[in-house]
Amino acid sequence: MTAKKLLILPGDGIGQEVMVQVRRIIDWMGKKRNISFDITEGLIGGSAYDVHGTPLADETLADAMAADAVLLGAVGGPKWDDLPFDKKPERGLLKIRKEMGLFANLRPATVFDALVDASTLKADVVQGLDIMIVRELTGGLYFGQPRGIETLPNGERKGVNTLTYTTSEIQRIGRAAFDLARKRNKKLCSVDKANVLECTVLWREEMIKLQQTEYQDVELTHMYVDNAAMQLVRNPKQFDVMVTENMFGDILSDCAAMLTGSLGMLPSASLGAADANGNRKALYEPVHGSAPDIQGKDIANPLATILSFSMCLRYSFNMDAEADMIENAVKAVLKGGLRTADIMAPGKAKVSTSVMGESIIREL
Amino acid sequence: MTAKKLLILPGDGIGQEVMVQVRRIIDWMGKKRNISFDITEGLIGGSAYDVHGTPLADETLADAMAADAVLLGAVGGPKWDDLPFDKKPERGLLKIRKEMGLFANLRPATVFDALVDASTLKADVVQGLDIMIVRELTGGLYFGQPRGIETLPNGERKGVNTLTYTTSEIQRIGRAAFDLARKRNKKLCSVDKANVLECTVLWREEMIKLQQTEYQDVELTHMYVDNAAMQLVRNPKQFDVMVTENMFGDILSDCAAMLTGSLGMLPSASLGAADANGNRKALYEPVHGSAPDIQGKDIANPLATILSFSMCLRYSFNMDAEADMIENAVKAVLKGGLRTADIMAPGKAKVSTSVMGESIIREL
Ligand SMILES: CC(C)[C@H](C(=O)O)[C@@H](O)C(=O)O
Ligand SMILES: CC(C)[C@H](C(=O)O)[C@@H](O)C(=O)O
Repeated sequence: MTAKKLLILPGDGIGQEVMVQVRRIIDWMGKKRNISFDITEGLIGGSAYDVHGTPLADETLADAMAADAVLLGAVGGPKWDDLPFDKKPERGLLKIRKEMGLFANLRPATVFDALVDASTLKADVVQGLDIMIVRELTGGLYFGQPRGIETLPNGERKGVNTLTYTTSEIQRIGRAAFDLARKRNKKLCSVDKANVLECTVLWREEMIKLQQTEYQDVELTHMYVDNAAMQLVRNPKQFDVMVTENMFGDILSDCAAMLTGSLGMLPSASLGAADANGNRKALYEPVHGSAPDIQGKDIANPLATILSFSMCLRYSFNMDAEADMIENAVKAVLKGGLRTADIMAPGKAKVSTSVMGESIIREL
Repeated sequence: MTAKKLLILPGDGIGQEVMVQVRRIIDWMGKKRNISFDITEGLIGGSAYDVHGTPLADETLADAMAADAVLLGAVGGPKWDDLPFDKKPERGLLKIRKEMGLFANLRPATVFDALVDASTLKADVVQGLDIMIVRELTGGLYFGQPRGIETLPNGERKGVNTLTYTTSEIQRIGRAAFDLARKRNKKLCSVDKANVLECTVLWREEMIKLQQTEYQDVELTHMYVDNAAMQLVRNPKQFDVMVTENMFGDILSDCAAMLTGSLGMLPSASLGAADANGNRKALYEPVHGSAPDIQGKDIANPLATILSFSMCLRYSFNMDAEADMIENAVKAVLKGGLRTADIMAPGKAKVSTSVMGESIIREL
């Protein structure tokens, strides 16, 4: 078996230091499990801009296209806040998603038993929470044309972005979500604003058609996006898999993530279409951002990135055994009482980024 | 003094029955405070469609334009779910907002001390919460052109909506929000997605200009909409006044409303521009919807609509004394332990819609 090609893009802020802990796991896999990867490391975001003058260099994109999977840290920071729009760190992330065709963004919001008190919500509301939000990632309001700012004849300026989806774009994200729902509890909630936005009327129609023609075994419900934001706060456990437009998914998945109270624990996967061999382009990254305020202090929580790597092993490399081992190690370490600052609670032991990484290795 | 013209639009679902309780307060004002209104009642939403074949008849709109204020119940329900897009109950609401030029939607999220336990969030996170979300209401993604669904040459369909704002639209909602912040704690948080959407880059630029030129006494901060959804869940009390785009405001204000756990308590105001005499067109309505599932059961909470009427007295009719009386009566009744089903808690007395209305009158 040839080694799997993994591109590592630590990015900005705490991205670097959390990725160091993943590297330790990779080393452990080489030594103890005799598994090695063909690893390339690259730059993205502000750190890419500083070197290449662009948040995503062509060579890095080429590496990503050639890789079996990409593991990303985080991008952005105040240092690059004043850059022009198309040089900003975020453009690197949006570009790699778009160019790799990663249309399906899987964002779990799960509450670890040991961390239920980290939530601002009452324990009984979030205990055992396990939602998967499937966010469309390469279309919708983020990418629609026309877009930009123009000056009108009367001297005023006008800003424009476009929310747009074609039936085939809706179908492919719909299938990704239905397939996932099938593997879980066969319940899918499609979120739209079909009482106001025609684009999401089409969204709803296509979801209904898919259910009727290909997924009759999955129960499909619909919810308006404003109500979904409410229901996530009122009773999040009513949801299993949710599927929605790019911008809606950005907002709802962050809201759902925060319900858990432990953002530093949440991984995500972004997947493309399967090729003839059933392989899909894929990028894995933590849900949290680059947290420049705590960068370099060795206090960031590396677990979301470690769990993103475990998702990568599971979904891209078919290494379920190793993925299980890592996830169990994370649970064991939490159960043992170790906490990074972000999830610290009375009576627990506060540890640094590196000690947390070390503890996972010891557990493994 | 000529009587103020009030147009009452109970709408659909529980709209009818909660409005009956407002009528009792109006009667009380006539008898005990010698204040009378010039009242017209009309139809909107599904109930207007049933009679006129349209969710907002021209005569009703004319009445609204002629009124000093409009008080609305709620619109929508499954009965009208299968109507074509432009006949749906919601179109009536969107049309009246647009035609009356009600660009500033004020949505408070406040937690009454007596109801702090109704929230799914921990008491210390929401106790004393008092946020005002200023949502732009006649522009943005809800109204931008082009919009619709078209069939492409290849047979696929494509849905389109447009997010667009001009500088003057941004400035007028900005001023409304800054003015309000000035009357409160001089803190305004403008919510956008300026790292992705050019339209909101313009939004942010205009907010900054306004602050620098007209509102240097108000502290302006900016937050991305996904982070705002998170921060509302993490620590809502960090906010005072927030201002944002129509669609973002729809989502965030519902999320914020649900933080309080007592949606049935929240009023809202939608305001137009001031005319030469300083009068503004205005519409007041509860934040909750038409709740068709509990319609006609005499269990709906009438307090949000009663508090919307009190906002109307305060902002449109300059009747601060009466507005205060009503708000104090609501607080007293809650303190006395009366609760409608939606806010019922152990040890309290569960009352019907009509008993709640009666209790408010008795308290007055
Ligand atoms: C950084 C930003 C462009 C990005 C997005 O909006 O998609 C982020 O918020 C996310 O959710 O991954
Ligand atoms: C009923 C609907 C059209 C409306 C909106 O989206 O504005 C409602 O959700 C609201 O927030 O007032």
